[in-house]
Amino acid sequence: MHCRKIVYEEYGDPMKVVSLIEQTLPDKLDDEQVLVKMIVAPVNPADINTIQGVYPVKPPLPATGGYEGIGDILAVGSCVKNLCPGDRVIPDGAMGTWCTTGVFDSKLLRKVSKDTNVYALSGISSNPCTAYRMLHDFVSLNKNDVVIQNGANSACGQNIIQLANIFGYTTVNIIRNRPEPDLENLKNHLKCLGASYILTEEELRTTDLFRSGVLPKPRLGINNIGGKSSTEVLRTLNNGGVMVTYGGMSREPVIVPTASFIFKDIQLRGFWMTRWRKENVNTKQYNQMYDELLQLMKDGKLVAPAYKTLPLNSFKEALKNTISSKGFIGHKYFLDLQ
Amino acid sequence: MHCRKIVYEEYGDPMKVVSLIEQTLPDKLDDEQVLVKMIVAPVNPADINTIQGVYPVKPPLPATGGYEGIGDILAVGSCVKNLCPGDRVIPDGAMGTWCTTGVFDSKLLRKVSKDTNVYALSGISSNPCTAYRMLHDFVSLNKNDVVIQNGANSACGQNIIQLANIFGYTTVNIIRNRPEPDLENLKNHLKCLGASYILTEEELRTTDLFRSGVLPKPRLGINNIGGKSSTEVLRTLNNGGVMVTYGGMSREPVIVPTASFIFKDIQLRGFWMTRWRKENVNTKQYNQMYDELLQLMKDGKLVAPAYKTLPLNSFKEALKNTISSKGFIGHKYFLDLQ
Repeated sequence: MHCRKIVYEEYGDPMKVVSLIEQTLPDKLDDEQVLVKMIVAPVNPADINTIQGVYPVKPPLPATGGYEGIGDILAVGSCVKNLCPGDRVIPDGAMGTWCTTGVFDSKLLRKVSKDTNVYALSGISSNPCTAYRMLHDFVSLNKNDVVIQNGANSACGQNIIQLANIFGYTTVNIIRNRPEPDLENLKNHLKCLGASYILTEEELRTTDLFRSGVLPKPRLGINNIGGKSSTEVLRTLNNGGVMVTYGGMSREPVIVPTASFIFKDIQLRGFWMTRWRKENVNTKQYNQMYDELLQLMKDGKLVAPAYKTLPLNSFKEALKNTISSKGFIGHKYFLDLQ
Repeated sequence: MHCRKIVYEEYGDPMKVVSLIEQTLPDKLDDEQVLVKMIVAPVNPADINTIQGVYPVKPPLPATGGYEGIGDILAVGSCVKNLCPGDRVIPDGAMGTWCTTGVFDSKLLRKVSKDTNVYALSGISSNPCTAYRMLHDFVSLNKNDVVIQNGANSACGQNIIQLANIFGYTTVNIIRNRPEPDLENLKNHLKCLGASYILTEEELRTTDLFRSGVLPKPRLGINNIGGKSSTEVLRTLNNGGVMVTYGGMSREPVIVPTASFIFKDIQLRGFWMTRWRKENVNTKQYNQMYDELLQLMKDGKLVAPAYKTLPLNSFKEALKNTISSKGFIGHKYFLDLQ
């Protein structure tokens, strides 16, 4: 049996080191192995950074790209108990998802419902989990509390909007300015996801939203950009507020006036789902998060971020657009693996 | 009865708005009032900022300067129970200490021992309390854990060195470079206070102290400077470490690489003793802190930072030197009020 997969033998420029190859799959599975026919797999900025060798996670080379995806089981090894041929699964720690068919460790897969949108499901482990944890783990939020985020149109930002809306929080969503009709279209898209307020970075600097008392000051800020954008976010925070950084799309550091720490008691934290997963995998709160997110996806309340699908042959286009978008474009690329 | 006091009728440049006046004291004390003959009072950077009107604490005008000091009680109002004439007291919330004799609310004074150095005692409410809390409230430190601080020769820095040494922590103390023999003298002074390691900012950038494994990476960083100096401090921190900012002597913001938050899980916090006092005054932990610090001072284990004393007439020199030193010179000014 053959498969096609996207591999790299050295770290470097994805446009140069990555190639699509055809490979024969092993005749026989090991005891704990599972053979999965893949359906789709997303291309995440972290995939790019991993290939570039600049990410703290460094898979042994040669490596198959991708750490998220979804597929159906074709066969299982002799000791696999909880999974059967025909089951739909997503990786829960497994790497190398950019393939038409792959062999994975059964312990690194999670069974999911076939009634749920595959684009939503296949990206669950990064953005929805990150959004969920950032809304849970840093500030004990109450209904109608305000959360402010920049890069609100990022894949994670769109999950934050949806989850915050479900949890009853008010969101203030900051996006970069852009020409019409793109700006109006983006605002409409985020509004439909449940965004309470949407402001460009320029609008944030002059808004009366917080000064006028229309809204209480945010208790939680979420930063995906850095630089001036993050300074503007933390300026809006209430005394004792927390700003959590999970990305740095501007490639600029976070800049914090000393007075924010001393007189406003602002806390700055960071979040990285990879570390949280490592420290919490299979705990009660880990499984509770998955149960909750999977149910929301099944009910159609948590949908995939705006996305485009490309065939496996066009993987270079998907990589290139993910690199150049810096997450600002507002759609995520999926590889069609069928 | 007359007193001399340093007052200002408007906020502004301390060199212009502050003057020494003579005033008649009231003939009779109110029920809860206490008449105190002052001994000494420190000049803190926060006093300067208060006079300038740029500090979040804004006393009603006209105001008497100073919020720390020490004196002996001359007389008490009819309802004062816990204090008697002859008692030595420090302010515990009282303002306006830059006077030869003053009338204070009995509830805002704390009785102290006459066997303790008055310079140490009179400054207890800001620097020693700040140092104590920063070493207690942010990281649960164990013996031999490493604490790194910049601006280590500041008045608070000298308290941090002494308290960390008493608590069994190793300190890495960063100071600005300066010509000899000043550098050697300063290093010796800090060494005598109990500093484990003392490095200039240049030495910190190239040190092997942490890379070589001589020392475990610090779990707590303390920042009094901001700008590049604070970035260098947080670079040394262990994963999960906390940097607490309590001052910004460089007047530059704190600059944080995004990766420190995401991949190293560094937390940035702030501390302001004025807020902590307001939220915790008269609680068990508040009194426990005072008991512990007062005992350490009585035992001579916690001494005043390097200081100079000036007569009340020379108050402008004390103000000027406190403004221009920016805390880097390494001595604090006290006004002799006797």
